[in-house]
Amino acid sequence: MKDASELCRSTFSATAFVANPRAMEKCVRYIHQDLNRSFKMEFLDTPDSEDEHYEAQRAKELNKIYGPKGSPKAYDFMFDMHNTTSNMGACIIVSSAQKSFELHMANYLKSNFTDTKCFIWISKLEDWESHTVNSICKNGITLEVGPQPQGVARAECLAQMKVLIQHGLDFIDKFNQGSAFPGFEMEAYVTINHQDFPRHSNGEISGVIHPKLQDKDFLPLHPGEPIFQTLDGSEVTYEGESTIYPSFINEAAYYEKEIAFYKMAKKRITVPAIQAQMD
Amino acid sequence: MKDASELCRSTFSATAFVANPRAMEKCVRYIHQDLNRSFKMEFLDTPDSEDEHYEAQRAKELNKIYGPKGSPKAYDFMFDMHNTTSNMGACIIVSSAQKSFELHMANYLKSNFTDTKCFIWISKLEDWESHTVNSICKNGITLEVGPQPQGVARAECLAQMKVLIQHGLDFIDKFNQGSAFPGFEMEAYVTINHQDFPRHSNGEISGVIHPKLQDKDFLPLHPGEPIFQTLDGSEVTYEGESTIYPSFINEAAYYEKEIAFYKMAKKRITVPAIQAQMD
Repeated sequence: MKDASELCRSTFSATAFVANPRAMEKCVRYIHQDLNRSFKMEFLDTPDSEDEHYEAQRAKELNKIYGPKGSPKAYDFMFDMHNTTSNMGACIIVSSAQKSFELHMANYLKSNFTDTKCFIWISKLEDWESHTVNSICKNGITLEVGPQPQGVARAECLAQMKVLIQHGLDFIDKFNQGSAFPGFEMEAYVTINHQDFPRHSNGEISGVIHPKLQDKDFLPLHPGEPIFQTLDGSEVTYEGESTIYPSFINEAAYYEKEIAFYKMAKKRITVPAIQAQMD
Repeated sequence: MKDASELCRSTFSATAFVANPRAMEKCVRYIHQDLNRSFKMEFLDTPDSEDEHYEAQRAKELNKIYGPKGSPKAYDFMFDMHNTTSNMGACIIVSSAQKSFELHMANYLKSNFTDTKCFIWISKLEDWESHTVNSICKNGITLEVGPQPQGVARAECLAQMKVLIQHGLDFIDKFNQGSAFPGFEMEAYVTINHQDFPRHSNGEISGVIHPKLQDKDFLPLHPGEPIFQTLDGSEVTYEGESTIYPSFINEAAYYEKEIAFYKMAKKRITVPAIQAQMD
């Protein structure tokens, strides 16, 4: 943030910001509500009100600067940088399989990112309204690097994020310069749904991620394999009908969202060619 | 906590409690001040006051139940159970090299704990007044299991803690039954001091733990070897005169304490024989 020169390319300039500075200062995800689920068009269009809590105000503020969401004035692209306690390597999240520009970037990042595992995560096959911060710009991806504990900076995670951002900016620069990106097929992980922890009748968690599943993000989970170990020592197995690929296994921020892991399907995705229309 | 039977032995009963329930509910270390540095005799002896913040009140409350500190009425033993983001394996913390009972227990735990690395950490060679929660009882140790991110329960860390506690209770039971524990020598890590992160003049951290040091708790660090990587890409090396053994490397809770890691010396400690005086 102190040296924007690393972020600029010949065809554009870029700016860095902290989405939730108050939360960062307190070393928590948010003060009142998850900012990164707060960018709903219906809400952003309502008039400001002094009664609104911090993240509601901040969402509107960011929308004014980098949006407005859905308008021609919105910024062209946003990278949303995250880390996770899950063993996700470098994971590139694209909100929909319809987002050709983002999928080309994801493919470019994956091809150029050789120092650790790299996975492409697609939230939905169809178009939908995402409520994450990057949804206020015309295009955007989310980058997840892990495992890294909350409240800790690990050198290799910082380095991985830096490399991802550098390649992402290079990709935009190439696109802006008129490079043709031919259509292709790629492997990606598409969300099916998510799995809660086992719970007692009072809602308390009664089991933890099974040691055989822990840290196995994006590896196949077959029906009948263990997913939880209850505190009284028994095993809970995966009872689905087909093999899935769990992700965000044991992510700290998702306990409150009742997500022990996401269930993903591995899919072949067809991405059409893209090329900037030069003036 | 729901089934105390695992905690009891023929010669004693034991009870489990959460030291800081409000902090646990919020998934933070503490509300106003670190409870585990709040058990100072001088403070505990002052009259209660309604103005005192939560952890001050809670320290006095715990001291009334399990202490009073330094009195004959205090509980005989307390295990203080922790987890750390550092790669400490199973670490047994004893406040002083003068604590023979605790050192015998640590030795017993280390001998019986075979499924991961186990280290004995001694805060000081001489006697001193510790301010941790277990200091209110006549004897006590602190158990640190890691690495585990904050806000995450990992099955293998839970299992390790359970095994340590079971063996610790067994040790007390053997002692109570009159078993003789002969004197011995052991290897332990004794605190020299601690190392802060590199900082800008405004106090902000300017570098992170070097990848070559990260996760290397209790391994030798030689003079001239890298300890930090600054955000502008340069290396900071360890400039001490002798080999040390870092611990608590990159522990999340210690950023605010300005501790990037503890510097430890590896020592041979002589522990005298102990045996309960039977009535």
